[in-house]
Amino acid sequence: MPLIVQKYGGTSVAGVERIKNVAGRVARTHKDGNKVVVVLSAMSGETNRLVAFANEASEFPVGREYDMIVSTGEQVTIGLLSLVLKEMGLKARSFAGHQVPIITDSQFGSARIEHIGSEAIMRELASGGIAIVAGFQGVDTDGNITTLGRGGSDTTAVALAAALNADLCEIYTDVEGVYTTDPNICNDARKLAKVSYDEMLEMASLGAKVLQTRSVEFARKYNVPVMVRSSFTDTQGTLVCKEDIEMEKVVVSGVTYNKDEAKISVLRVPDRPGIAARLFKPLTEAGINVDMIVQNISHDAHTDLTFTVSKSEFKRALKLVKETASDIEAKEVVGDPNIAKVSIVGAGMRSHAGVASKMFDVMAAEGINIQMISTSEIKISCVVDVKYTELAVRVLHDAFELGKEEVNEER
Amino acid sequence: MPLIVQKYGGTSVAGVERIKNVAGRVARTHKDGNKVVVVLSAMSGETNRLVAFANEASEFPVGREYDMIVSTGEQVTIGLLSLVLKEMGLKARSFAGHQVPIITDSQFGSARIEHIGSEAIMRELASGGIAIVAGFQGVDTDGNITTLGRGGSDTTAVALAAALNADLCEIYTDVEGVYTTDPNICNDARKLAKVSYDEMLEMASLGAKVLQTRSVEFARKYNVPVMVRSSFTDTQGTLVCKEDIEMEKVVVSGVTYNKDEAKISVLRVPDRPGIAARLFKPLTEAGINVDMIVQNISHDAHTDLTFTVSKSEFKRALKLVKETASDIEAKEVVGDPNIAKVSIVGAGMRSHAGVASKMFDVMAAEGINIQMISTSEIKISCVVDVKYTELAVRVLHDAFELGKEEVNEER
Repeated sequence: MPLIVQKYGGTSVAGVERIKNVAGRVARTHKDGNKVVVVLSAMSGETNRLVAFANEASEFPVGREYDMIVSTGEQVTIGLLSLVLKEMGLKARSFAGHQVPIITDSQFGSARIEHIGSEAIMRELASGGIAIVAGFQGVDTDGNITTLGRGGSDTTAVALAAALNADLCEIYTDVEGVYTTDPNICNDARKLAKVSYDEMLEMASLGAKVLQTRSVEFARKYNVPVMVRSSFTDTQGTLVCKEDIEMEKVVVSGVTYNKDEAKISVLRVPDRPGIAARLFKPLTEAGINVDMIVQNISHDAHTDLTFTVSKSEFKRALKLVKETASDIEAKEVVGDPNIAKVSIVGAGMRSHAGVASKMFDVMAAEGINIQMISTSEIKISCVVDVKYTELAVRVLHDAFELGKEEVNEER
Repeated sequence: MPLIVQKYGGTSVAGVERIKNVAGRVARTHKDGNKVVVVLSAMSGETNRLVAFANEASEFPVGREYDMIVSTGEQVTIGLLSLVLKEMGLKARSFAGHQVPIITDSQFGSARIEHIGSEAIMRELASGGIAIVAGFQGVDTDGNITTLGRGGSDTTAVALAAALNADLCEIYTDVEGVYTTDPNICNDARKLAKVSYDEMLEMASLGAKVLQTRSVEFARKYNVPVMVRSSFTDTQGTLVCKEDIEMEKVVVSGVTYNKDEAKISVLRVPDRPGIAARLFKPLTEAGINVDMIVQNISHDAHTDLTFTVSKSEFKRALKLVKETASDIEAKEVVGDPNIAKVSIVGAGMRSHAGVASKMFDVMAAEGINIQMISTSEIKISCVVDVKYTELAVRVLHDAFELGKEEVNEER
């Protein structure tokens, strides 16, 4: 009998009426002859309500007590879904993190799963029951309640699927799957039938917020097939899985963009060993994440160094870099928040040459100046003036023929 | 160093501002050189909110899943109080029922405490910390979350005080203590400095809703001194403790009343063995609690049988009794919901004669007809027409001189 893990997010369980819809889908999956494990988030809005209490109680509400408070929302929804399923005549049992148990480290607020005990859930499934598990939470080896950080329920679901050796992990959300690009920008954006873990990781970290990055890493590590789909329709979603031969034929799977970054350039830096380290150390110490870094070859023993940071940290970063720049005798520091990062992602790039030059050609033809370039094995990112974002996405989506019906589309 | 358990009810923790007030009191008790264990209820209104969800999810929301849901309110308040205390620079740690652990049986919704592990809390106290424990909840030996029933936080506090061998258990509530009678009826009602467990039990079950009955039973069993006091003032409260010689000198400690009962009389029942059993069996099966039962000596092999039930169950009970009455050939069944039970309670009754006749005299002098009488070692209850309730309470309060300053009043 196949074992399916289904995860429903906060909008899918916002209120008892919606929980009843979820129960209908769970019951159908169970009736179709599957063993079903359900992972739930808190009702949307509930975690914010609890966080507001914590903020009122403490200036820096973090750590063990914060997790004690914010983990209660999931405990409510799992109890409610179990009640509804029992009312429908089914056997169901809720599991808080410590009852599974989902053992984590003690990094309160962003704990990592270390081990999942499968015995109690397997017993419930073997007796014909449905197991309803609280997402987002775990317990450390001292019995303290921990949370996995925002969006952690995706990770709970994938980790459970791995631990239970499930046949499929379904992530129910408010979109129908993963698209070739943002449908708000390209009206011929197409839902992908399949996408590889690596592609999904690049897309997620580039701004396509469908699945939490950590959950995709988990899925890749344990080879868990993940189906992203909508809880409001019956449409087939997007399967995130291991790369296969069909996927390699597709050069580019999607075009993504990110407007949340800003660019900082340090001009005419003396090109000596240790300069980059000195420049980035204050940023690291201030907890500022640096994304793209580009350094060109030097002229006259001087070089230019450009990098991007999150827009919300731009001002702080600029101030820190200006302080360091005078120490290391750089000529000038220039900041620019009006940029966007446009990227193409595709597993097929590994075996196809000429993808990058095609990308540059297409953008040049539209007169879009490329300010920075960064590449990985399966993606190419260009920083451009923010005003060109939509234009760049559209011409790239067209050029790589992403709007066309995919040959190996599955139904 | 003395160990004090403090329990704060729902109105005392309704909102973060009030939790900060509680924190102030806890901090003062700690600073005064006591080890402090705090037991909290959920914010007032919160449990009702959760119950409303459960009622929407299921027609009969009971059992394991219901407890999973309604136990979350206390988890929020203990986390918040811990955050506030830490913000004040104190060491504090919250404990859910399963973390203490408070081991109960598996009677979900009305579980009974079987064992409390004191080790984790003692460790916290030994390190200079304050232990904040969720009231109302426990865990069974299979790791299921259980609840003790409404008002169960009092029981949690007293049971913890017993397990930790505490010097005092303080119950903070919205009244200043236990009074000689309802101050709304007698304006010279006086707060008692001390009351014995037995007196408190009679008072609680007779309608003086200050402490949950089960918590008093627990306190008596393990000889835990309990101080009932207000969380909104600094006034000394009422100490509920073992009966002492001073208490025996006081014949009557209080006058209580209960308007929530109704009377049912079965007239001219053939006086045969087993008749009473047949009469009450259908009520027991329907889950209807019978309070007072009075049966007089028989005349002509017939007797009259009168008993009281809760007003909310009066109609159901009357219907059932009428059905049985014809089977057992009783002449008539008469119901009367317009009654009140007025009682006097006092440990001194054990050693003082004439208390009952004084009570009857006082009521007769006012023309109050007594419909039923029931007595225990330390209380005498009379059922009267409901319209005489306040009058009866006042004349009894006067007659037993309860408004006067107590000789052994403690300050």
